[in-house]
Amino acid sequence: MPKVSDEHKEERRRQILEGARRAFARYGYERATVVRLEQEIGLSRGAIFSYFPDKWAIFFALAEEDYARAGELWIREGFRAVIEQMVLDRPDWLGVYFELTSMLRTNPELRAQWSARNPEIDRRLLEHIVGEQRAGRLRDDLEPAEIARFLGVILDGVTVHVTAGFPPDLDLVLKLVNAAIRPE
Amino acid sequence: MPKVSDEHKEERRRQILEGARRAFARYGYERATVVRLEQEIGLSRGAIFSYFPDKWAIFFALAEEDYARAGELWIREGFRAVIEQMVLDRPDWLGVYFELTSMLRTNPELRAQWSARNPEIDRRLLEHIVGEQRAGRLRDDLEPAEIARFLGVILDGVTVHVTAGFPPDLDLVLKLVNAAIRPE
Repeated sequence: MPKVSDEHKEERRRQILEGARRAFARYGYERATVVRLEQEIGLSRGAIFSYFPDKWAIFFALAEEDYARAGELWIREGFRAVIEQMVLDRPDWLGVYFELTSMLRTNPELRAQWSARNPEIDRRLLEHIVGEQRAGRLRDDLEPAEIARFLGVILDGVTVHVTAGFPPDLDLVLKLVNAAIRPE
Repeated sequence: MPKVSDEHKEERRRQILEGARRAFARYGYERATVVRLEQEIGLSRGAIFSYFPDKWAIFFALAEEDYARAGELWIREGFRAVIEQMVLDRPDWLGVYFELTSMLRTNPELRAQWSARNPEIDRRLLEHIVGEQRAGRLRDDLEPAEIARFLGVILDGVTVHVTAGFPPDLDLVLKLVNAAIRPE
């Protein structure tokens, strides 16, 4: 039997992730059954679960992708770009995150995995914030991690509003966020 | 047959709301079945649904209570008190809200009902903000509704973090919120 090439494996992995993202967005996490995952992905459960151990692992890989993309956008184009490109148009998908908040709280192992989903992006983001502080574009009387955490609260608050069908006035939110984190 | 007194009715209503709050906090909205509601409340489904037309109506009544209490607290004791008394210690209960965000977005009728859950508190809160602006404690270059909406985003962001088991540093959040909404 010929060995499955790495390229083929990577294609299959992408097919699984993209199909699963559609299935989660459409049905939510809990109701994305194995049958529905098979249908959206177009592969059998055997094939799917030879790439990922379980449904959580698929979701986690998608959350990792989101996190890396959000971090890159933030560093390259700023915080507004993260909201515009990753939040405003994806309420179905983002709703899935909120289905899982209680699970994260009540399962310390998952919560630890979640916190450490991309230490490399975390490190680069903090470096970016330090650079912005040195350039006088962010206030420097706070730790970089404090600024990152505050913006994380804002991002989650905006995401709740978008997901519930009450998208906030982005200009207003960013104006007030800037007043909070810019130097006097 | 003697007529059920208003006092008795009010007691029963409270019993239903308190039991349902426990059931929702424990099982989530979807998994709080009629059997589980009966168990937590200690009344039959017949009795329960003679007070409320359906499960949504019970949840909505609880959300109305939360909203009124949050509004009163905000006006009387400030925004910090809302977070301290209504968010920090209730992650189980608050998780239920996030189970319903996608339903609100995709059901315009529920969303309209949700937006109008307490116009009287909304009015009093805006009046309170106007008073704070006149007293020089809040910046007056924004509409009162804009300040309220920004604080709504913050409140939801903090609630996500608490519900997911990552409670934020409240002093830090409030320091930055104040920098955003206090006069220069």
